[in-house]
Amino acid sequence: MSSITELLNIKYPIIQGGLQYISRSPLVSAVSNAGGLGVLTTGGMDKEELREQIQEVKKQTDKPFAVNLTLIQKNIEELVDVVVEENVPIVTTGAGSPKKFIPKLKENNTIILPVIAAVKHAKKMEALNVDGLIVEGQEAGGHIGQLSTLPLVRQIVKATHLPVVAAGGIGDGHGLVAALALGASGVQMGTVFLATHECPIPNSFKQAIIEADDLSTIVTGRTLGHPVRAIRNEILQEYLELEQNNASQEELDNLVKGSLYKAIKEGDRQRGTMQAGEISGLITEIKSVAEVITSITSEAKDVLKQLELPY
Amino acid sequence: MSSITELLNIKYPIIQGGLQYISRSPLVSAVSNAGGLGVLTTGGMDKEELREQIQEVKKQTDKPFAVNLTLIQKNIEELVDVVVEENVPIVTTGAGSPKKFIPKLKENNTIILPVIAAVKHAKKMEALNVDGLIVEGQEAGGHIGQLSTLPLVRQIVKATHLPVVAAGGIGDGHGLVAALALGASGVQMGTVFLATHECPIPNSFKQAIIEADDLSTIVTGRTLGHPVRAIRNEILQEYLELEQNNASQEELDNLVKGSLYKAIKEGDRQRGTMQAGEISGLITEIKSVAEVITSITSEAKDVLKQLELPY
Repeated sequence: MSSITELLNIKYPIIQGGLQYISRSPLVSAVSNAGGLGVLTTGGMDKEELREQIQEVKKQTDKPFAVNLTLIQKNIEELVDVVVEENVPIVTTGAGSPKKFIPKLKENNTIILPVIAAVKHAKKMEALNVDGLIVEGQEAGGHIGQLSTLPLVRQIVKATHLPVVAAGGIGDGHGLVAALALGASGVQMGTVFLATHECPIPNSFKQAIIEADDLSTIVTGRTLGHPVRAIRNEILQEYLELEQNNASQEELDNLVKGSLYKAIKEGDRQRGTMQAGEISGLITEIKSVAEVITSITSEAKDVLKQLELPY
Repeated sequence: MSSITELLNIKYPIIQGGLQYISRSPLVSAVSNAGGLGVLTTGGMDKEELREQIQEVKKQTDKPFAVNLTLIQKNIEELVDVVVEENVPIVTTGAGSPKKFIPKLKENNTIILPVIAAVKHAKKMEALNVDGLIVEGQEAGGHIGQLSTLPLVRQIVKATHLPVVAAGGIGDGHGLVAALALGASGVQMGTVFLATHECPIPNSFKQAIIEADDLSTIVTGRTLGHPVRAIRNEILQEYLELEQNNASQEELDNLVKGSLYKAIKEGDRQRGTMQAGEISGLITEIKSVAEVITSITSEAKDVLKQLELPY
């Protein structure tokens, strides 16, 4: 059960989800310093920005951290080169297969954890000899797959021999123990880290997480085949209506152009896309990253201690 | 943690999901005899048929069983009367609020467990003084809500004081322990019971469950606001295409008219609607109900024994 912590050389089996344009050095180093695995994202970065961010993280922590590579990025070759040159110990990958980069990363002893959302991808990744799998259900925030965490994790654990990290819908110690019961060896969490002091987003976005209930997130883009989960607001309501009326991809793209920026930099709760998961309703206060990790890991201890079968 | 087994006076914390037109006396009595809670469904029944079915179950088991009441049924008043007259110990309810029937059922000491899919419904049901909640995620088969089991169960357990039964995406002992870790006190399972010898559906339907993988189920009816999960096939593919082209409700209804019958009675895998959950991919053989329950409950013991935190 402890394979992920041993593999990654971290204290707690908690990986911070790659939050595009958000998980930069302050958040990443805080998670790693607290005993989890901080994950830098590369969305929109050129190679020099990535190098700076990596060096910044290294200044702020001596613990392991990872870089999340979105494989459809145009400059992905350059970004992989920076990861290798900077000896980043771990990468997580998304939006495609890391196949092409595996020899280079393996040669550098970089641990590779693809984020996947179906059994067939798990089998492909196992054949590529990756080190573990981050298995993400559709209750997660941001770009999502089709299946939910509980049945998905269980089916992938049964279908492969790799260590599995469960992602999507997990926000406390109960969720961590549930993931381990399914056969995962750790969890990845994104939404809980949005509501932390170290997370570099405006307070209004954090407040939207705090105020969210279980039904606050919605999925747009399903009809286009690239669903995204975010907090329901004015702009996403407009998007859904356009989608229902079979608007063109161009019209939809135009509507939300710049809306990630509006959420992340300007804190616009009505015209910004605030990507977040279904677990938002469980989060009721803004904490430090260390407080989040301590509360989850100590709650998990209590949950496990009290867990019993009624027969 | 044991409140559901004590409340229902059953050995194992396993409730059989109400499978419309399927869970009749052979399946129901088998589940109750094996130590779980068998649940009769009432879809399409008149009061005399229900009375017969109840009496049949009583002949086949002396253990507790339940009747599932779909509250939108036209003859629901009559069906509730039969439940009371026959002293059915437990009801599960769906598709609406049982408010109107609560005094009558309470007077008869009938235990009431509504099936719900959001925190706001949990709070409403708690205020009505029901006995427990069956909390169903959208990975379940048949008519579904919006949220997934993992975040939904966790949020409802936190929001109410009632015992919670987790439903959707659970198919083995790992899933049972995961549900308990989330704070549920039991599970409801439907799909696993489809693939049992006692389940009165054609072998071709059972075979479809056995052959399913994680991606085999799809959701139709999302754009109409009444989503249903079933195994992808010819007719549902046609339905999805019509839906994408904004076909009228009438056109869609006409397409699938009689398709439940085609699946359940005729075993038509292409023109029948085979309602089933995302966990279908985990099910690889047809077993007896007793074997299913024994394997899940003994696996759960092993899972719990081996469960540990890596820190």
